[in-house]
Amino acid sequence: MALIVQKYGGTSVGSVERIKNVARRAIKWAEAGNQVVVVVSAMSGETNRLIALAREVQPEPDPRELDVVASTGEQVTIGLLAMALKSMGQPARSYTGFQVGVHTDSAFTKARIEAIDEQRIRADLDQGMIVVVAGFQGMDAQGNITTLGRGGSDTSGVALAAALGADECQIYTDVDGVYTTDPRVVPEASKLPSITFEEMLEMASLGSKVLQIRSVEFAGKYRVRLRVLSSLTPWDIPLEQEMRSGTLITFEEDQNMERAVVSGIAFARDEAKITVVGVPDRPGIAYQILSAVGQANIEVDMIVQNQSVAGFTDFSFTVGRNDYARTLSILKNEVQAHIGAKDVLGDPKSCKVSIVGVGMRSHAGVASTMFRTLSEEGINIQMISTSEIKVSVLIDEKYLELAVRALHRAFDLDAPQNT
Amino acid sequence: MALIVQKYGGTSVGSVERIKNVARRAIKWAEAGNQVVVVVSAMSGETNRLIALAREVQPEPDPRELDVVASTGEQVTIGLLAMALKSMGQPARSYTGFQVGVHTDSAFTKARIEAIDEQRIRADLDQGMIVVVAGFQGMDAQGNITTLGRGGSDTSGVALAAALGADECQIYTDVDGVYTTDPRVVPEASKLPSITFEEMLEMASLGSKVLQIRSVEFAGKYRVRLRVLSSLTPWDIPLEQEMRSGTLITFEEDQNMERAVVSGIAFARDEAKITVVGVPDRPGIAYQILSAVGQANIEVDMIVQNQSVAGFTDFSFTVGRNDYARTLSILKNEVQAHIGAKDVLGDPKSCKVSIVGVGMRSHAGVASTMFRTLSEEGINIQMISTSEIKVSVLIDEKYLELAVRALHRAFDLDAPQNT
Repeated sequence: MALIVQKYGGTSVGSVERIKNVARRAIKWAEAGNQVVVVVSAMSGETNRLIALAREVQPEPDPRELDVVASTGEQVTIGLLAMALKSMGQPARSYTGFQVGVHTDSAFTKARIEAIDEQRIRADLDQGMIVVVAGFQGMDAQGNITTLGRGGSDTSGVALAAALGADECQIYTDVDGVYTTDPRVVPEASKLPSITFEEMLEMASLGSKVLQIRSVEFAGKYRVRLRVLSSLTPWDIPLEQEMRSGTLITFEEDQNMERAVVSGIAFARDEAKITVVGVPDRPGIAYQILSAVGQANIEVDMIVQNQSVAGFTDFSFTVGRNDYARTLSILKNEVQAHIGAKDVLGDPKSCKVSIVGVGMRSHAGVASTMFRTLSEEGINIQMISTSEIKVSVLIDEKYLELAVRALHRAFDLDAPQNT
Repeated sequence: MALIVQKYGGTSVGSVERIKNVARRAIKWAEAGNQVVVVVSAMSGETNRLIALAREVQPEPDPRELDVVASTGEQVTIGLLAMALKSMGQPARSYTGFQVGVHTDSAFTKARIEAIDEQRIRADLDQGMIVVVAGFQGMDAQGNITTLGRGGSDTSGVALAAALGADECQIYTDVDGVYTTDPRVVPEASKLPSITFEEMLEMASLGSKVLQIRSVEFAGKYRVRLRVLSSLTPWDIPLEQEMRSGTLITFEEDQNMERAVVSGIAFARDEAKITVVGVPDRPGIAYQILSAVGQANIEVDMIVQNQSVAGFTDFSFTVGRNDYARTLSILKNEVQAHIGAKDVLGDPKSCKVSIVGVGMRSHAGVASTMFRTLSEEGINIQMISTSEIKVSVLIDEKYLELAVRALHRAFDLDAPQNT
């Protein structure tokens, strides 16, 4: 008997009829002999409605009280889903994050899970119940209600699976798995039957919207077997077919020799590039630049420093486009004179395109294939950064679609993928 | 420094603007040197919306899960009100029934409060905070979320006032006090500046919608000074004027000799009458009938047993109309054959009209004035029950308005009331 944690997002529970279908699907897994815990989000639109209401009262809502308000969205869904299960004859019980003991830190609106009391869930499972848990929420050491921030329900699901030692955590979304790239950009994109945890982490962090990055990190840390599935398939398809319909995120590299060198093309729109020009090349400069940015809670993505010439160097990095103006202003007003830089330049119209694949570890020339492909399309590369399993380039955002399509073709991803 | 518990109902917090006015009013009381705890209901319409959603999933919603869903209404309000207070510079903190330790029994959807952990509230008050508590909800010994049933927020307010030893519990509603009867039925109805606890209990239990009966019982048991106030007055009127605008519920009888014999006419719509016909008249029969009904958590109101004739008697009682079909079915299927009754009859279209007043203790002929008045209007009396300070009759619901107006006139209540 396997223990499965299933997580359903807001779209999957977006109406009464959909909640009933989630109940039917969970019962199908239970009737196949599994113990099933279901983690749910708020019904789609509900969290936005609650936040808008809060903003009407207080334009920048008090974070503690915002969590009190926002956490009600999931609480409604768990009650409704438990009712649906019971109405179908399936014993079930719902729990809020508070009730089930999802302990978090006190960072309201973006809390992190520290521990979960799983005894109560386990006792219910042993009685044959399907247990329904509110995602996205927990409580801090003082008994305050906390929320995990947007997308936090994925993390709740993975954390519960880790606490319970579940055999698998199944994330149901309105996409049917992980694709070689976004099918809206490349119609030939195809679903990957499996992907390694490392690749998934790169894909998620590079803008693939399938899973929230923190949940993937969590899964990696606790070695939770993760499966992305589509909640759009009919609920009554056979289990084997349903499993094949998604993407499994594995910890072992696939031994299949036919596996492609590059598994997917990820991209992130809305990047902005900042360059601090003519920086005296001495120790501590990078720290002085980035700490000022970090203190303003601005997240930095790619970082590149050129070889210094005559004691001066240029220091470039990217931030989200929303943070562009603020970053530029911090550097010009607080940093430039202080470190003796000549100028601070920027370009808010960049995007990042990355090729990802564990296969590239053992294949030379992957990067050069990427650069040649972009060059043949006349696309200028602004920045490059690499890791063992990915190569990212920053380019002008107007070339995003062209670059992704060309790379998808160049790395033989236009044909259906097999494991 | 006085400690005041204020309770605001759904209409009083029915919009963002109204929530802000509640905040302003609470701050006014705090700035006058009081410690203030505010208990709030769900925004008007919200509880109905949640229950309708639950019924869509499960026509008779599982009670435990219904409470999980329904309790979110108040949770939204407490967060919003705490935000409003903070945005006005007033330190504040919100608590759900779960967080503040409102311990109840496990009768989901109509739980009773057993105890309240008040330490946390007291600590916050001592720090100068206004504490905002969700009404209507609590938790049972197993940590399940419970609700107190419709109107339960009044009870939450009074129970908190009792637990905290508050100097006064102020119930804000969209009426401005207790009237001689419902002004929607009798336009000449006038406000009572004060009413005794006993009268209020009869008025509330007989259908006067101002206060929930259980909250009045609670106030009586713990001798909580209760004041009904209007949330429709401007929030910034002087405190003295605001206090005069409501009705104070006192524990001592008024010594004013000019006080009317009858203080008010109460009524309850939606009553249903059940008669168990031809019951063998032996000890234990009433218990056997009513315990079966009580075990189904159905509340019984009036009870009348006729004189037995030839060893058989008829046993009648009333229940709320919503419980009519269930009561009838329980009696027919579980009780009738067991006790050897001939039949179970019922009439779901009754209403109860009552005259209430401590003055009638010392005045003869009050009941006969009532019966004569109804007779003159051609209204047939189906059942009668009396107490020291009230006389109630059950009549066909189509005569409700006529009966109330006639009695209001007959007992000289059409003129303004003075204390």
